[in-house]
Amino acid sequence: MSNILIIGAGLSSTALIKYVLEQSKEKGWFVTVADADPGLAEKKIAGHPNGRAAWLDVLKVNDRRELIGRADIVVSLLPAHLHFEVAQDCIKLRKHLITASYVSNEMYRLADEVRDRELIFMGEMGLDPGIDHMSAKEKIDEIKAKGGQITAFRSYTGGLVAPESDDNPWHYKLTWNPRNVVLSGQGTAQYLEDGKLKYIPYHRLYREHWNIEVPGMGQWEVYANRDSLLYRDHYGLSGIPNLLRGTIRHKGFCNAWDALIRIGLTDGSFPILDSGKITYRELMEAYVPHMDGGSVKDRIAALIEQETDSEVMQKLEWLGLFRRKRIQLANATPALIVEYLLRDKWKLKTGDKDMVIMQHEFEYEMEGNKHLLTSTMVMKGENEVDTAMAKLVGLPLGIFVRLVMEEKITSTGVNIPVMKEVYAPVLAELREYGVHFQEKDTIIG
Amino acid sequence: MSNILIIGAGLSSTALIKYVLEQSKEKGWFVTVADADPGLAEKKIAGHPNGRAAWLDVLKVNDRRELIGRADIVVSLLPAHLHFEVAQDCIKLRKHLITASYVSNEMYRLADEVRDRELIFMGEMGLDPGIDHMSAKEKIDEIKAKGGQITAFRSYTGGLVAPESDDNPWHYKLTWNPRNVVLSGQGTAQYLEDGKLKYIPYHRLYREHWNIEVPGMGQWEVYANRDSLLYRDHYGLSGIPNLLRGTIRHKGFCNAWDALIRIGLTDGSFPILDSGKITYRELMEAYVPHMDGGSVKDRIAALIEQETDSEVMQKLEWLGLFRRKRIQLANATPALIVEYLLRDKWKLKTGDKDMVIMQHEFEYEMEGNKHLLTSTMVMKGENEVDTAMAKLVGLPLGIFVRLVMEEKITSTGVNIPVMKEVYAPVLAELREYGVHFQEKDTIIG
Repeated sequence: MSNILIIGAGLSSTALIKYVLEQSKEKGWFVTVADADPGLAEKKIAGHPNGRAAWLDVLKVNDRRELIGRADIVVSLLPAHLHFEVAQDCIKLRKHLITASYVSNEMYRLADEVRDRELIFMGEMGLDPGIDHMSAKEKIDEIKAKGGQITAFRSYTGGLVAPESDDNPWHYKLTWNPRNVVLSGQGTAQYLEDGKLKYIPYHRLYREHWNIEVPGMGQWEVYANRDSLLYRDHYGLSGIPNLLRGTIRHKGFCNAWDALIRIGLTDGSFPILDSGKITYRELMEAYVPHMDGGSVKDRIAALIEQETDSEVMQKLEWLGLFRRKRIQLANATPALIVEYLLRDKWKLKTGDKDMVIMQHEFEYEMEGNKHLLTSTMVMKGENEVDTAMAKLVGLPLGIFVRLVMEEKITSTGVNIPVMKEVYAPVLAELREYGVHFQEKDTIIG
Repeated sequence: MSNILIIGAGLSSTALIKYVLEQSKEKGWFVTVADADPGLAEKKIAGHPNGRAAWLDVLKVNDRRELIGRADIVVSLLPAHLHFEVAQDCIKLRKHLITASYVSNEMYRLADEVRDRELIFMGEMGLDPGIDHMSAKEKIDEIKAKGGQITAFRSYTGGLVAPESDDNPWHYKLTWNPRNVVLSGQGTAQYLEDGKLKYIPYHRLYREHWNIEVPGMGQWEVYANRDSLLYRDHYGLSGIPNLLRGTIRHKGFCNAWDALIRIGLTDGSFPILDSGKITYRELMEAYVPHMDGGSVKDRIAALIEQETDSEVMQKLEWLGLFRRKRIQLANATPALIVEYLLRDKWKLKTGDKDMVIMQHEFEYEMEGNKHLLTSTMVMKGENEVDTAMAKLVGLPLGIFVRLVMEEKITSTGVNIPVMKEVYAPVLAELREYGVHFQEKDTIIG
């Protein structure tokens, strides 16, 4: 095997492309980076002799199949809904496939075909999902191996801004898909507590946040993810009474985001009439109940049960929601209007560093003692381009590509990275790149 | 023309079938009632010599087309998503089509084809939508004809229980699709106030209810419908600054329903795990925030900001939400669980009478005066079978069938009943059946 195809040269490809190109000379690999924008692909390859940029409109079936046909392994960084067609090509053409996206049920249904052809399709091979699975599963296997009985597992991740670059009242900047930030949490969150399922509907999700202590980093807010139960079996925790996955945000974030939800601004399901012509202030006015008096700001404050000059209101004001400025987005949903505000307001500036925090909490019983094991990873980016987010998404993909190219993986079928033959070498190599989990094991009872 | 086909012999067909059979002898009509349950159709026809029951699985294309082919006019009482296929058959076979359902955009796209074949497809020909359109448009045309300038139109309808049969703490019983009752209002409501669009997201909709005075009936609660702007042009009110459609409920209803929404119980998008095995009380427990103490009831009360013995809590308790009784519905969404509780608790008992209230409010300026015209229709049912709801849905359908059979309708294409040649004779005949609007015109400025 010598040919690697990477489809997509966007934000999350940088560290991956860098990693495989660095290894390519010694290993004799050839790396094709395909994108609808070949200039972008060329820029990422930066003249490397083992790299080649290709122009690809992924919806053009023949072009796509020709490129895939010439590769041994395909990494798809396409939007998630496009993976399935690539996956079908990979089956037909007998190629391995790696993505950082959630594995859909549709994709899992290909498992037998993939296994029959002795291929591996690895999904969720980035940061979250990705490193979270691997680092959690490594600890779970360790605790079990030494005879511990796990009674609680809580896992939190946040893509954040580093304190030294934190200069806005939300204490947040964008390092991943802004659309997903705006829609995060819609639906009903599910988790396990004391053996019982718990539900939190979206309109209560950010309100019912709580705090966690991150060693050396103080207190952070967390809110529950939608999907805490999804990995119970993958992690080998089928009988566990406490299971929760959550998202980390800076203190004060959740109440302010809850205000946007309460007003109604995160709805992506209908277009605001004349959204191209009205101002942000007029949009807010449209959401204020008809019976109240006072200024728009006073009435919004009353609606969200805040003082007009509260921190939450200051955050809304800082976003520009009360400005007499035209929205200038035709036919836009409230969610899209907010997304475009955030793209501008929460943009990393030149030299800004992002920060990723991942923290697992395991409660387990061993030899009559009750333990709390906390495992924490904090990583900061270099600058606004070489972000911790891009590195932590790209490196696991690159390392796993190497493992497959070197035929070190025996698993086949459709998978997520919870097997030791994957997580052990990937986490070991990640450590060389500075990805360290700090552990603290305390006897709590 | 002599052959009428009615597809669907369910609840809303009773008054329609009775009306067309009554007319059939004199007019020489033959009426076929087709249903998946031919016994139901036969029961509705009750041996009438001009009636015939037919067994029809509407998804069997050939059977359906054969029945439609033999008819001159088709009334479809099928669930809304099945109308479109029937509509395509009707175009192909050149048949008129009448429904009581909302006209979809898909259906409107057939307008040219329908018009080219000189057919009429009439949708929204029941109560709401239906009588609301006709009675509103009649008044609007009257006010305009006498030179009035309409500045506000608000229209409210409620399918309710008559006071003499009102024996539960919600003061509500089911006379229409229970599923639609549970999901009512999901999305974002839109209306016009002082020339400006207003939005209310679902999680605020029932909280932001207000009261209206119904002459002779006291105060009732109303909440905004999703679709107030939809009919602006149909009604000839394109420049109007105030436009609102709303739903009428008994006082106290909206806050209690808001409690169900706040808890999270109206979500129809995901199944509750093990819903067949847990109790209602356990379901409520699953929705209570994890950090609070006290009994389930205390914690739910705290969650919805109520005293444990408040009227709202009493309504929830009366539904059986705190009972240690198994739900016994496998794989059910929260919305479905609530729906099945309500089907039982809000069922009309033998002899119970329902009640429909429809009230339009028009503000208009004429000769320097500002008027408020209120037009109110209240109708009670005979009993739990001959409901006001069934009569008010079925009679307009029946009357319109007669008008088409007698070739009194010149309109063609896809329509809703806002043209005078439809509303005038239908409303006139409805008056003979006791459907009266009481009017009160007051000069208010």
